[in-house]
Amino acid sequence: MTVGLSEPENILPVEGIQLVTTSCGIKSNGRDDLVLIKLQETSTCAAVFTNNAFCAAPVLVAKKHLSQITPRMLLINSGNANAGMGEQGLHDAMQSCDWVAEYAGCRADEVLPFSTGVIGEPMPMAALNTGIQVLGKQLRENQSQEGQWLSAARGIMTTDTIAKAISKQITVDGCQVTITGIAKGSGMICPDMATLLAFIATDAKVESRFLQQCLESAVNGSFNSITVDGDTSTNDACVLIASGASSAQAINSESREADSFMSAVADVCIHLAQAVVRDGEGATKFITVGVRSASSVGEARNVAYTIAHSPLVKTALFASDPNWGRILAAVGRAGIDALDIKEISIFLDDVCIVSNGARDKSYTEEQGQRIMSQPEISITIELRRGNSEATVWTTDLSHEYITINSEYRT
Amino acid sequence: MTVGLSEPENILPVEGIQLVTTSCGIKSNGRDDLVLIKLQETSTCAAVFTNNAFCAAPVLVAKKHLSQITPRMLLINSGNANAGMGEQGLHDAMQSCDWVAEYAGCRADEVLPFSTGVIGEPMPMAALNTGIQVLGKQLRENQSQEGQWLSAARGIMTTDTIAKAISKQITVDGCQVTITGIAKGSGMICPDMATLLAFIATDAKVESRFLQQCLESAVNGSFNSITVDGDTSTNDACVLIASGASSAQAINSESREADSFMSAVADVCIHLAQAVVRDGEGATKFITVGVRSASSVGEARNVAYTIAHSPLVKTALFASDPNWGRILAAVGRAGIDALDIKEISIFLDDVCIVSNGARDKSYTEEQGQRIMSQPEISITIELRRGNSEATVWTTDLSHEYITINSEYRT
Repeated sequence: MTVGLSEPENILPVEGIQLVTTSCGIKSNGRDDLVLIKLQETSTCAAVFTNNAFCAAPVLVAKKHLSQITPRMLLINSGNANAGMGEQGLHDAMQSCDWVAEYAGCRADEVLPFSTGVIGEPMPMAALNTGIQVLGKQLRENQSQEGQWLSAARGIMTTDTIAKAISKQITVDGCQVTITGIAKGSGMICPDMATLLAFIATDAKVESRFLQQCLESAVNGSFNSITVDGDTSTNDACVLIASGASSAQAINSESREADSFMSAVADVCIHLAQAVVRDGEGATKFITVGVRSASSVGEARNVAYTIAHSPLVKTALFASDPNWGRILAAVGRAGIDALDIKEISIFLDDVCIVSNGARDKSYTEEQGQRIMSQPEISITIELRRGNSEATVWTTDLSHEYITINSEYRT
Repeated sequence: MTVGLSEPENILPVEGIQLVTTSCGIKSNGRDDLVLIKLQETSTCAAVFTNNAFCAAPVLVAKKHLSQITPRMLLINSGNANAGMGEQGLHDAMQSCDWVAEYAGCRADEVLPFSTGVIGEPMPMAALNTGIQVLGKQLRENQSQEGQWLSAARGIMTTDTIAKAISKQITVDGCQVTITGIAKGSGMICPDMATLLAFIATDAKVESRFLQQCLESAVNGSFNSITVDGDTSTNDACVLIASGASSAQAINSESREADSFMSAVADVCIHLAQAVVRDGEGATKFITVGVRSASSVGEARNVAYTIAHSPLVKTALFASDPNWGRILAAVGRAGIDALDIKEISIFLDDVCIVSNGARDKSYTEEQGQRIMSQPEISITIELRRGNSEATVWTTDLSHEYITINSEYRT
């Protein structure tokens, strides 16, 4: 099940960007598992990647190619992560770029490869080769333009139960420009500098350095502020493309529209990041953990993540049990230096549970029960140590999570 | 269920230590929930406590009393943690000491109070008062000496499914001395400086400073090296008492027997700590995570705990699924500075899964499956960065964990 999430609607194409999708047999269930995204020549491209030291082979190749040249093609497969495979994995990732070059007409280093799925199994290269040929043909024949973003959103899914996509339009220099993004992710979600897989494109012209700045800022407040299970993936990546197909003037950090573009990208990222949490493995609740009046953003994030990762808090949320002592215990173990518990307040939505470090005198179990029974719940901590704050979104921890993750490979 | 754990046998009394246990109604199921331990006058006493900033009222009172005077009585209740209750909690904890003083004959500051159970609910003081009266009478009448340690082990249990106790004997100065310990704990287990509740006593005479040194050293390699769910309790405490009833000479850090005593205390703590993991909430597997050739003990512990806390590793263990990519991903996200993944090897028991950072060429899924099907599994990581190492014991993550923790208060 998902929490407050339905099939994406009104997803708009982005001029200058073509997407084609197929099923080549990497996923054993026959679903779409291969996507190719073609960027028109005027495009600029920004990206952030996982900080996991065991980052997957395609991440290494994509980073290398991105540092050399502006990409023309993004190849994404789901079902196999091509991670933990050593030299063989690197060879396979580079081979896939060669095939895209051959079948879709570009240079091999103009291809960024992305993979998501099971770690530690060899990539089925024959299937991949066939798939890339099919996609190359589709591109040449300009097939399947309608609904291409939604097909791609489905093609990159693994344990996701629903496609994740959103479009937004803003006016730049008197022209309407579009931003459309897709993402996949449901488990192994605790992004660090980047996330899961997300691909966002706009037809605006955007100066390359400013594009990277927009992406990093947006990712910090979105994909880097969510957790399902605290596990950071080996394959996380988030790409922002500006095709430049719009006739509006190029945007850079000095432009009148810089702020509104940046904030539109942030909105798209927040929507996609929250969609990942709403479709989190086994999720029955969507939880917003806010930490206020901390002495630093790092401290606020630390407290928020300690709560968001606590299996005891998460199982209480699953049970709709206002067992707030578990929240308090999580705050207490967050390792905050010289924490004065007498200053701390804890709220469930608007209900004050803890004030001055102890159960609030007016709090009743019925109030707590009322909030905990909702599908969407805010937990807010006030530390009264400073002016910094942070928000993290997460899920509960349910039987379904255990089922999904104990049966993932069977 | 428990993993490789049966009812304790051959638990030996400790001369100079009396234990009495009763049921006073703090637990709603009618089970024993109150224990009083009396120390003879010659005793020395060492203790370590939780580092959770929201430590419970009895922890604050016990620390204060211990800093003032050598204790004569330990009062332990289960079923209510007396945590998160502010001034009321402190008042209740001190009141319980007054009652012990009145009904059992000592000074109030000679009493150390301990509580374990639900956080954030007021202590039922009338029940506690009656219970302490009953225990005072039992002490005066010298009742129930047989099996007193086992009764106490049961009296301090909460979600534990089995009592945890062990005895060990060593020879000091030609005399046989006994060390007996009990512990409780099953969930909210990730001790920090101390743990859950554990009470260990010996009839040896031990100099007070050396006693504290033995305890801290033993706790580091036992209770501080386990995790069930990564949540550190508000009420953790571990107490080591030396009654001095033995006629052997007093032990201090210079004694010939210093090492053998220290190592016997460590053995008792390791047994009890492993018993807590073996009875971990929902545990179906007992996992030893060893990290070798790290550049520091802190780094080794960090990697070991990252694996031991990973919900994805734990659900794979539950499923007996050799999905070793999840172990690799956990190592990669442990935040080790300049980690060279090409140096890393990973073993399941004696099977090498990963060598030089990639799947070992000789590894087969059947080998992994064979190890993962066992109830007890070792995961060993070699980092090849230095000479430090650490071992952490943990459980898998099962449906039963979710059931226990979503129904804990119902």
